Amino acid sequence: MTFSVTILGSSSALPTSKRFPSAHVLNAHERLFLIDCGEGTQIQLRKYKLKLSRIDSIFITHVHGDHTLGLVGLIATLNLLGRKTKLSIYAHASLQPILNQNILFFVNELNFPIEFIPLNSKKHKVILKTDNIIVESFPLKHRIPCNGFLFRESPKLPNIKKEAIERYQLSLTDITSIKRGSDFTSKTGKVIPNTELTYISSPPRSYAYCSDTRYFERLASYTKDVDLLYHEATFDKNLEELAKTTGHSTATQAAKIAKLSNAKKLIIGHYSSRYKDITPLLDEARIVFPETYSAEDGLMFSI
Amino acid sequence: MTFSVTILGSSSALPTSKRFPSAHVLNAHERLFLIDCGEGTQIQLRKYKLKLSRIDSIFITHVHGDHTLGLVGLIATLNLLGRKTKLSIYAHASLQPILNQNILFFVNELNFPIEFIPLNSKKHKVILKTDNIIVESFPLKHRIPCNGFLFRESPKLPNIKKEAIERYQLSLTDITSIKRGSDFTSKTGKVIPNTELTYISSPPRSYAYCSDTRYFERLASYTKDVDLLYHEATFDKNLEELAKTTGHSTATQAAKIAKLSNAKKLIIGHYSSRYKDITPLLDEARIVFPETYSAEDGLMFSI
Repeated sequence: MTFSVTILGSSSALPTSKRFPSAHVLNAHERLFLIDCGEGTQIQLRKYKLKLSRIDSIFITHVHGDHTLGLVGLIATLNLLGRKTKLSIYAHASLQPILNQNILFFVNELNFPIEFIPLNSKKHKVILKTDNIIVESFPLKHRIPCNGFLFRESPKLPNIKKEAIERYQLSLTDITSIKRGSDFTSKTGKVIPNTELTYISSPPRSYAYCSDTRYFERLASYTKDVDLLYHEATFDKNLEELAKTTGHSTATQAAKIAKLSNAKKLIIGHYSSRYKDITPLLDEARIVFPETYSAEDGLMFSI
Repeated sequence: MTFSVTILGSSSALPTSKRFPSAHVLNAHERLFLIDCGEGTQIQLRKYKLKLSRIDSIFITHVHGDHTLGLVGLIATLNLLGRKTKLSIYAHASLQPILNQNILFFVNELNFPIEFIPLNSKKHKVILKTDNIIVESFPLKHRIPCNGFLFRESPKLPNIKKEAIERYQLSLTDITSIKRGSDFTSKTGKVIPNTELTYISSPPRSYAYCSDTRYFERLASYTKDVDLLYHEATFDKNLEELAKTTGHSTATQAAKIAKLSNAKKLIIGHYSSRYKDITPLLDEARIVFPETYSAEDGLMFSI
């Protein structure tokens, strides 16, 4: 099953000719979860052939324009494309009135329901649970209330060994019961322990999105053991003071959080437009955390 | 002096991977006049190396999202870039409250004045006159109030013939007076007629922008003898009825307006996303008006 992240925008507040403002999309089992929605997100989705109809929910970290200004255009387009199914938007409560006003003004007869779920920017909590995925939201430290998100596959049921199905002539009812943890009693009355009948599937995969935030070590507890961590790296290590005062991080700090998290892989991004070449940022991060990669618009990371 | 138009967006309501929503920029003597401002306009301006600091005024035809949703992001970016000079926005009055609300919410401490000039969508009138350029606004026929714009260089003063300057030892005062139409009286008392001293500069160049509109012939009176006419061509001639009911035009109709206007050149654009290849639209327009060209994002037309 697909579990991959595509970078739609990797710039910070000022987009460049090569970097759109913030947006990532997670494809989890062919449902798309959009994270942030900077200006032009709908154009990037089309460019990278991500089906707009598959967007399930949108998660907005904070209400700055470079993370939100693509919402109205995207909603207008979904409407023109005939969407009827509910769109869930998770964001800080302050976004709801201005979003509604814009929709009223710019979208002609909205034909699908929008469910707005206000986020608590102070608590670490589960905000969505489906059959396939669990989404947690946790506090980041920016100039305004800001949330990070962790997407994790739901724990998978174990698989039944093929030879067990044949040997014990297991019915569908037996299989369901065994998958849920039961032992099996054969026709002769012999109890076969569950562990002899099953094997563990691949462990649930996970992806965390942390932008915008200044460096704080508790963040690593929210992203513990994550497979893929995206952590903003607006500045290089020489601008640590500027990073702190503007509520941002350096590439070194992003790498420290990846290391503290015991993440498998780190993506850095949200680069200040002053960096024409981000190699120095990548280099400084890799000193701390070698498995660091650079967010580039259109790049896809499979987990 | 430069007088050129760059296409920033050539799609209609649904952008595609190759076409951004509506926006053109006119470079008139190194001042930029932005016409419409669909989502992503600021990204296109950067991509095509058009200096954001040179934007003088913005002209919005109508308040549909595909012509306006790039405004807030562009204004936020101009602010981050340190703009201090006034930005004039010409648009239907209904845009002002929602634009102001968005600026208040999304732009942190606006540091330059925005002058909002409401347009009359029923009258043909001059809306701006500078030393170099005159801008006229005129009614279009769309589903909501909509304006077209004509940009024309101000009439140029004649040039003085070099040999006249030498022969009659003309002073700066003489030259200024002759440029304004006076004859010249030489030291011997001989009157030299103005026509012998001057020659006419190149005639004022002009560009008209007509989108969105259904076909109506009076439009050609507003764009009479224009050098370059942009006229929307959302549909092909087989969809004339759909064009009429949605307030749009076919490529053939755009070409008819160009012919009736006695325009020198026509650009068609604002294509429905149903056309993957717009050659058929270009072909049908060229039957009526051979000097027709297709709007493509990034294309520049020098006049």
